[in-house]
Amino acid sequence: MVSLASQAARRQPQESIDPILSLSARDMARVNELILAMAGSNVELIPEIARHLISSGGKRLRPMLTIASALAHGYDGDHHVKLAASVEFMHTATLLHDDVVDESDMRRGKRTARTIWGNQASVLVGDFLLGQAFKMMVEVGSLDALAILSAASAVIAEGEVWQLAAAKTMTTTEADYIAVIDAKTAALFSAATEVGPVIAGKGEAERQAMRGYGRSLGLAFQLVDDVLDYGGSAAALGKNTGDDFREGKITLPVIVSYERGDAEEKAFWQRAMEDGENDDAALAHAKELMQRHDALEETIARARSFGEDAYRAAASLPISPAREAMLGVVDFCIERLN
Amino acid sequence: MVSLASQAARRQPQESIDPILSLSARDMARVNELILAMAGSNVELIPEIARHLISSGGKRLRPMLTIASALAHGYDGDHHVKLAASVEFMHTATLLHDDVVDESDMRRGKRTARTIWGNQASVLVGDFLLGQAFKMMVEVGSLDALAILSAASAVIAEGEVWQLAAAKTMTTTEADYIAVIDAKTAALFSAATEVGPVIAGKGEAERQAMRGYGRSLGLAFQLVDDVLDYGGSAAALGKNTGDDFREGKITLPVIVSYERGDAEEKAFWQRAMEDGENDDAALAHAKELMQRHDALEETIARARSFGEDAYRAAASLPISPAREAMLGVVDFCIERLN
Repeated sequence: MVSLASQAARRQPQESIDPILSLSARDMARVNELILAMAGSNVELIPEIARHLISSGGKRLRPMLTIASALAHGYDGDHHVKLAASVEFMHTATLLHDDVVDESDMRRGKRTARTIWGNQASVLVGDFLLGQAFKMMVEVGSLDALAILSAASAVIAEGEVWQLAAAKTMTTTEADYIAVIDAKTAALFSAATEVGPVIAGKGEAERQAMRGYGRSLGLAFQLVDDVLDYGGSAAALGKNTGDDFREGKITLPVIVSYERGDAEEKAFWQRAMEDGENDDAALAHAKELMQRHDALEETIARARSFGEDAYRAAASLPISPAREAMLGVVDFCIERLN
Repeated sequence: MVSLASQAARRQPQESIDPILSLSARDMARVNELILAMAGSNVELIPEIARHLISSGGKRLRPMLTIASALAHGYDGDHHVKLAASVEFMHTATLLHDDVVDESDMRRGKRTARTIWGNQASVLVGDFLLGQAFKMMVEVGSLDALAILSAASAVIAEGEVWQLAAAKTMTTTEADYIAVIDAKTAALFSAATEVGPVIAGKGEAERQAMRGYGRSLGLAFQLVDDVLDYGGSAAALGKNTGDDFREGKITLPVIVSYERGDAEEKAFWQRAMEDGENDDAALAHAKELMQRHDALEETIARARSFGEDAYRAAASLPISPAREAMLGVVDFCIERLN
């Protein structure tokens, strides 16, 4: 089996993402058409906000994974396009609501919808997109796919509430945190890939492999994001570095630093995350402490470990361009660190 | 056919609502159990907010209508309970998001969730309840019912965005307004009743009758609400009278007053609704103008007319306690004015 480490050593991020881009290009063109059509409305504000989101440079990783997972299981129908568009709408609705909840001003280097059109429109347009997502799923007519995606929808929201409630307390453990990102990030990746074998008429073994692939990939993806939030530059990331810190979001690098810190350092983290003492000087100090305790390296190690799990799950697929594409996505998620 | 007017003349609101309360009592006990179970979560904040909403004294009209509509079509299975709970969750999720969008502090005489737990939790718990609603619908396994309810979900949000965009301009016409409440209120009533014949295995004629009943009832219900917002007392209504006025919500009484007003009055409405000059003195003047132009009477007449439509649609049902219950609900909606 080709190992993740060797792949990572010899490829650049673009080389790793290219296979899924090529594989899904034709279907993704149809996904994008469907997204534009389903974001249409006589209520002008809806397509206006939708266009902003659509043009905001997301990679559309999740719908590409739905396409790849369906193709990897020999699916040759049309339903994967609708499910992929549903997955992207669910993701977009979550982003709209997240930005309201987190009071974020920037995402992917662009102003968030809420700073342009207000929180009210962001909440309601998110609801609209979620409704449209379910309409498309119903059109596909697979109750199994509907069960997977509707369960994910509830789990994602539950994870967000959990994070909201847990965000401001340093008693959050690593296990707590993994449970939160399992819900708020990994659940949609997992659902996006599990519906592939479902519409291809495959059984529980194939579903379980894809569920596992999506989950592990999602966890790795989120942990890499957490590292980038303390490591990248705002320009490269298209997102403000230190956002998580300023929002009091307790991510794995913070938890590791806290656990490994002495009493004085623990007191610093409490002031920063619980009491909101999170100015630029505090952020700089936080980064110092992370370096002192190898907190980013530890988080990267966890991400790589989840990446290996995802790799093994996809490696169980029959050899095909779709399998290669799904393996490449794992590398891509990790290589974003370079 | 028994006419709405004669019913209204001889009955009190409680007498009209009693038949559906009795009819649905046993099933609604199961709906309530299911609601509590599905609002459960390890994330404490979720059941906490859910309990607040559940105990906040809503009449649960929509799920009762789903029960009654299923029974009116001879349904003797279990699925109406899950669909009724789904309908109530959809409604509750909408209320949570509405209160955030409208910045409302009170609903049904109690503090809104957002004033107790914040806008963030209200947005996310609303999302969670919507996800749980879809999970229950999927468990029922009727793609037709899913199509009806998911379409309603998108339409409701679309109507809310429309209202948000149209709220502050006096160019809103009566037709615009009916279109808004058709989406934001009538769509859920309509879906709640249409799923009855669907799970009972009935055909398009029965579905159409119930769709029409729910829609007309929902329109009548909303127009009566609009009148009560300028007519009742805060204590009786459990809601602040004048809320719509203070929020710049252009409802039918405002539209009628504006259309019938002279230039000076039109200027007053523009200042009040568009520029936010809506203090207590302005509200008192608004009520005077409504009286001068019979705006509340005109709105009531429209509500009665929609009520008659609902009445006719339900009267097409075979005679049964469920039919009586559904006719009674129409009277109840109108009689709330007394």
